[in-house]
Amino acid sequence: RPALPVHRSARRVAIFGGTHGNEMSGVMLVNLWVQNNTEVQRKGVEVQPFITNPKAVEKCTRYVDTDLNRAFTPENLSTLGGGDLPYEVRRAQEINRMFGPKGSPEAYDVIFDLHNTTSNMGCTLLLESSKDHFNLQMMNYIQASVSNSNLYCVCCFFAGLEVGPQPQGVLRSNIFESMRDILKHALDFIELFNAGMEFPPCTVEVFRLSERIDYPRDDNGNIIAMVHPNLQDCDWEPLNPGDPMFQTFDGKTIHYQGSGTVYPTFINEAAYYEKQQAFATTRRESLVASAIRKA
Amino acid sequence: RPALPVHRSARRVAIFGGTHGNEMSGVMLVNLWVQNNTEVQRKGVEVQPFITNPKAVEKCTRYVDTDLNRAFTPENLSTLGGGDLPYEVRRAQEINRMFGPKGSPEAYDVIFDLHNTTSNMGCTLLLESSKDHFNLQMMNYIQASVSNSNLYCVCCFFAGLEVGPQPQGVLRSNIFESMRDILKHALDFIELFNAGMEFPPCTVEVFRLSERIDYPRDDNGNIIAMVHPNLQDCDWEPLNPGDPMFQTFDGKTIHYQGSGTVYPTFINEAAYYEKQQAFATTRRESLVASAIRKA
Repeated sequence: RPALPVHRSARRVAIFGGTHGNEMSGVMLVNLWVQNNTEVQRKGVEVQPFITNPKAVEKCTRYVDTDLNRAFTPENLSTLGGGDLPYEVRRAQEINRMFGPKGSPEAYDVIFDLHNTTSNMGCTLLLESSKDHFNLQMMNYIQASVSNSNLYCVCCFFAGLEVGPQPQGVLRSNIFESMRDILKHALDFIELFNAGMEFPPCTVEVFRLSERIDYPRDDNGNIIAMVHPNLQDCDWEPLNPGDPMFQTFDGKTIHYQGSGTVYPTFINEAAYYEKQQAFATTRRESLVASAIRKA
Repeated sequence: RPALPVHRSARRVAIFGGTHGNEMSGVMLVNLWVQNNTEVQRKGVEVQPFITNPKAVEKCTRYVDTDLNRAFTPENLSTLGGGDLPYEVRRAQEINRMFGPKGSPEAYDVIFDLHNTTSNMGCTLLLESSKDHFNLQMMNYIQASVSNSNLYCVCCFFAGLEVGPQPQGVLRSNIFESMRDILKHALDFIELFNAGMEFPPCTVEVFRLSERIDYPRDDNGNIIAMVHPNLQDCDWEPLNPGDPMFQTFDGKTIHYQGSGTVYPTFINEAAYYEKQQAFATTRRESLVASAIRKA
């Protein structure tokens, strides 16, 4: 039998809330756990709940100067400038000092970044790398454990947990409890892993981010169509060439013109209007995670 | 037969969008009609679509300095101060000069103020006065004409049209088309009235605003409970003494303790967290509108 890929144990875990200050589930859960961390304590794990963008939380806005979630670039993290820098760039530097440096041996082992979306995406784990067997095994464990069957996994450019649909600035009990449940099982997984449990190879169904689709616009950049009612709220459902995609304000339908079936996600997310994105397409694939066991 | 109450004709009608800059249906409809007003033209009526809070629209935020919707007070409208005043107070003064002065004979005859809510309220006409037979007749006409059966009428402290559920910053085609349809029939009503049609007496079912209910809070003012899943999205449905109302973060249910059946509305509206309101209770009543005919 071949040797198992081994991992160091996950001794330090951070739970970030309020990276976007108007995504209320993470804000409220983290505030709750900062006051009383009993619920997130696990044997052999140091768990640190942390509000990442307190100024945006106070104002109940996505960000103050710039999107914190896009601020952790090598350039931002190394730039000098102190008080002259945008608030979120300074904050990214502070967070990187506290929980990183990113990629270093002193960095926290696992970071959960809690987000909400206005899209009908259920619970979605975002993975930065499809080769991260630890995270794939965690996904597999959570999928087998949670009561909520609306659980998806996406390979994209940033890691985190997205739960929706929930409007910005609103706290819905169903979304709050779904997020709480995912975190419970994720921490259970880490505790079991640290205790030496071996997780056998498994297959995980994932969606790989493909293309960003913008709203149709006029020459001045103004939107001239909305997400079509047949597509609205249909995150993760197949979109085939010829299917309705947008509806113009004068009632015309614009159809999807791609070359094959895709699975749209982040459909009509409020925060992505300014990013020129009406939805993102993904393609389904199966990933095999190797067995893992603590070193 | 007694003489009909007569009204002057409604020659000048304004349609306001963007009073809250992140309520997208009104913003987009009014922008559309500013570019091309064919759809809102009616014989014998001057219809003026108007973006009331352009700075908030540009930032896609509810307001810049203060809530424009609460800025039309006699005190604000008469105060001097120019550039030192909050943006929305200056804007209220401008709007009052253009479309008012409020209560004067020069004022516009009808103003539609278009709003969205994150609550599951369907289409709701807000009436300032339950004695305004013109507006009650318009409500009755719209109710008989629209395809959408989720149409409600509330007597409260401000006039307007609320359509939801729609997250802030999001444009949903179903909500957009519902609002557009209501406006179509409202303008048709005004055209018919101006042409001399007589509208016989009618009865309109309305909800009268009763009480504002805040979220349960701790001594520091922090929210300690969410709207209960049994109440979430159940705007206009009966809430009886003993029914679940809130769910605390540690899973306890808080029940409604009122003295009789109420009909909650604006349940979990994003913008009302800062106003300390989880929902408002209403009571049902029937109002009789007299017959009306143009003078």
